[in-house]
Amino acid sequence: MSNLNKLKERFSELKKFKYINNLLQWDQQVYMPDGSIQDRSSLIELISKISHKRLISNKTKVLINKAEKINDLNLIDSAIFREAKREYEKAIKIPTDLVIEIAKTSILGHDAWKKARNKKKFTIFKPFLAKMIELQKEYADRLDIGQSRYDTLLDDYEPGATSEWISKIFNYLSKHIKEILNKLKNSAEKLDQSILKKKYDPKKQWEFSLEIIKTLGFNFNIGRQDKSTHPFTVSLSPNDVRITTRILESFLPACLFGSIHECGHALYDMGFMKAIHNTNLAGGASLGFHESQSRLWENIIGKSKEFWHYWYPKLQELFPENLKNYSEDNFYKSINSVKPSLIRVEADEVTYSLHIILRFEIENLIFNDKVEVSELPQLWNEKTETLLDLKIPDDSKGILQDVHWSGGAFGYFPTYCLGNLYAAQLYDSILKKDLVLKEKISNGNFLDLLNYLKKDVHQYGRIYHPKELIKKITGKNLNPDYYIDYLKQKYYQIHSIN
Amino acid sequence: MSNLNKLKERFSELKKFKYINNLLQWDQQVYMPDGSIQDRSSLIELISKISHKRLISNKTKVLINKAEKINDLNLIDSAIFREAKREYEKAIKIPTDLVIEIAKTSILGHDAWKKARNKKKFTIFKPFLAKMIELQKEYADRLDIGQSRYDTLLDDYEPGATSEWISKIFNYLSKHIKEILNKLKNSAEKLDQSILKKKYDPKKQWEFSLEIIKTLGFNFNIGRQDKSTHPFTVSLSPNDVRITTRILESFLPACLFGSIHECGHALYDMGFMKAIHNTNLAGGASLGFHESQSRLWENIIGKSKEFWHYWYPKLQELFPENLKNYSEDNFYKSINSVKPSLIRVEADEVTYSLHIILRFEIENLIFNDKVEVSELPQLWNEKTETLLDLKIPDDSKGILQDVHWSGGAFGYFPTYCLGNLYAAQLYDSILKKDLVLKEKISNGNFLDLLNYLKKDVHQYGRIYHPKELIKKITGKNLNPDYYIDYLKQKYYQIHSIN
Repeated sequence: MSNLNKLKERFSELKKFKYINNLLQWDQQVYMPDGSIQDRSSLIELISKISHKRLISNKTKVLINKAEKINDLNLIDSAIFREAKREYEKAIKIPTDLVIEIAKTSILGHDAWKKARNKKKFTIFKPFLAKMIELQKEYADRLDIGQSRYDTLLDDYEPGATSEWISKIFNYLSKHIKEILNKLKNSAEKLDQSILKKKYDPKKQWEFSLEIIKTLGFNFNIGRQDKSTHPFTVSLSPNDVRITTRILESFLPACLFGSIHECGHALYDMGFMKAIHNTNLAGGASLGFHESQSRLWENIIGKSKEFWHYWYPKLQELFPENLKNYSEDNFYKSINSVKPSLIRVEADEVTYSLHIILRFEIENLIFNDKVEVSELPQLWNEKTETLLDLKIPDDSKGILQDVHWSGGAFGYFPTYCLGNLYAAQLYDSILKKDLVLKEKISNGNFLDLLNYLKKDVHQYGRIYHPKELIKKITGKNLNPDYYIDYLKQKYYQIHSIN
Repeated sequence: MSNLNKLKERFSELKKFKYINNLLQWDQQVYMPDGSIQDRSSLIELISKISHKRLISNKTKVLINKAEKINDLNLIDSAIFREAKREYEKAIKIPTDLVIEIAKTSILGHDAWKKARNKKKFTIFKPFLAKMIELQKEYADRLDIGQSRYDTLLDDYEPGATSEWISKIFNYLSKHIKEILNKLKNSAEKLDQSILKKKYDPKKQWEFSLEIIKTLGFNFNIGRQDKSTHPFTVSLSPNDVRITTRILESFLPACLFGSIHECGHALYDMGFMKAIHNTNLAGGASLGFHESQSRLWENIIGKSKEFWHYWYPKLQELFPENLKNYSEDNFYKSINSVKPSLIRVEADEVTYSLHIILRFEIENLIFNDKVEVSELPQLWNEKTETLLDLKIPDDSKGILQDVHWSGGAFGYFPTYCLGNLYAAQLYDSILKKDLVLKEKISNGNFLDLLNYLKKDVHQYGRIYHPKELIKKITGKNLNPDYYIDYLKQKYYQIHSIN
């Protein structure tokens, strides 16, 4: 075997460890009995340990050094090498003990977070969060690749992103969102969501979600949907992509848009070209890019006029008791009603970014040592008042609402917002290529859109750097104006604002 | 850390690899999407490879050699050492490549077997079976610890068992079964199963099975039940024991007794003393012993008068359309109707052993090179005629009915029959200790029985050798007379034979 092939084999094997780890975690969140949490933690620890040891081994180092000398790598091979080197050089800075400690704390922290959220008591989660923050600080200090600790963490999720770059984008965005919100507030159009809060049979919601994602192109021969507290997507191989959703009997959007969102992620992971299936390139270009796919399907498509022109009659038929006398137009408006709210995953498109800005600001403070863990609930509550003008009744609706911190995912949240920006810019470029796309969608043809996304984005996996990819597709760097224009056009139309 | 602790740690880690492998296989059989079969195979291959390499490493050898020199090991530690040595000494004889090849062929074979069974075509499965037999022959030849290849294979499932010992027991058993069958045939009592073949709502069957196993002591905090084609039990840790069942709408016993059977296995795996939880002793004394638990609960208890005295009113209430006018006594008789049939897992207690004897004889021929793979369906059909006096309509009801051979489990079947014998002998000893046990059962108290089994069997895991354990509990070696007496007493009573 050539040295290059040995390197590829090595990183293909490391990817397999990740898939095994993913199965252990998927199972933990979906089917594992409660009493097994400690034992599961030790299995994840074992896999993490072995995998990390192999990654940082001398054998890996030698293979990377040898591959570095090869001059004429093709596109895929040079991307494989680039990602291998990046992963290796990050990993050798982190001692195995720290990796294990993070993995362990993540399992126990997830369990504590679940309990804390149920009991609405931050104190149950606090010691685990405190420990995780300390571990992440150590992690960032050792890695030390950005201008600041937080920049270092960001790079894990969005290669090349810095807090300065994000701040600039977020400030610009926040200014425009406030402008939009002000206009909407003053408009005569009064929208409300009460129709969505009637009772919807959970079984029918489940069936409907399956029908939708199937029509969007989710391939059940290489994927499945289950239920979990916090919806997520995970790959156990490019031929085994799993999503979860959650069903709330009295809140229709939870399952509906949860499923479409995760389906968007899954379509990305199901669409890699075969040539990269068994390589370290079988993943999204970045988390922001991954989110662009989930958000494009969930919001830009899933909350569009044309989407519901096709699906609303089916939904009416399924829930005549609630929807028989409720018009398509009113339904479209109700799922797009804009109102500042407490829960990020239930927020509308306009206010959503404010939830992210809140988290981004808090994470910045945490990693610049400007806030204590015990002060976080209070800080969360204050920022919610400032940004959303709302009061937090209890921690389950405040700081305990998201799973991310329990797993040590600091620097992750901003990618949700970047995802919106990528999505708007991508969709704009597709609409320019296919002038009748919206018409197709209103006729129930979603596969043409999927094929554009496959061709432009999915097939490449991690071959291209995210900044390179967005430019390759749209001819431009990431620009928040596409998203702002999209919001203005859509919501001014709904509210009859010129 | 002492050398002994290092050895314990080593084998605790190896056990964790098994748990991870078990999760990969559980998921494959229960939830994995079809298109992922090849990828899953490569994940199982990776774990098997790493685990095997560690087992046969020089490090393991050194630890075993050092531990061998310690004189004053306590009961648990000496059993840990005994099992570690046994596993190591077997493993070093098997090259890693062969282990991988078997694991791989097992995954692909399982898939082919499923397809073949669905399409009723042995030829789909044939090449995989042929390959697996070759691999198992090589495996046995390399291991070479018994008088014959087949003895070597048997030792993996029932330490100390030989085909001579089993032949003797089976001949004795078969003679008595024929005698019993003859008497039953001539009795006036006509039993039929038609009541069990009415339609029973699958959802209600599922709920009922959950209620039963919960009452028998299945702890859902450390276990769960799912559905699969072929019911099985698997441990992902001593705190995560999973069973599966299958539901046939028009055959009530499938789910009912399937669940109770697997629950019996699970209760064993849930009952190990804490001191052996993280050791290589967290398993059954042998497969025969494991089967003794599943069969004791499924047959001796689950098909007893006293069991149904408690459960039948509840079953009637659940399915009044079928059972309202059907008496408890008739139901008891119908689940115990004796009639030679084609499918092993649906066989009655009296003819069951004949199915095992059939498989035992065929496996003996296979591993003594006395039959070709292409001749197996024919041989199966002929033996079915000889032993059960029945014709096989297609291979799905003949040679394709069992999953075992697809995974290379040759020498496994006899343990089912040994399980019946252990069970009868164990139950006899418990009844002598607790004269009102049957009364307790008829009142719905199953936990006293569970506690006897925990105390006598479960808690010890693999601390004792099976032959040693049966003697420790009952004061005697394994003796088929207990089972024969049990059958005679029960079935002569049902058929009013003196």
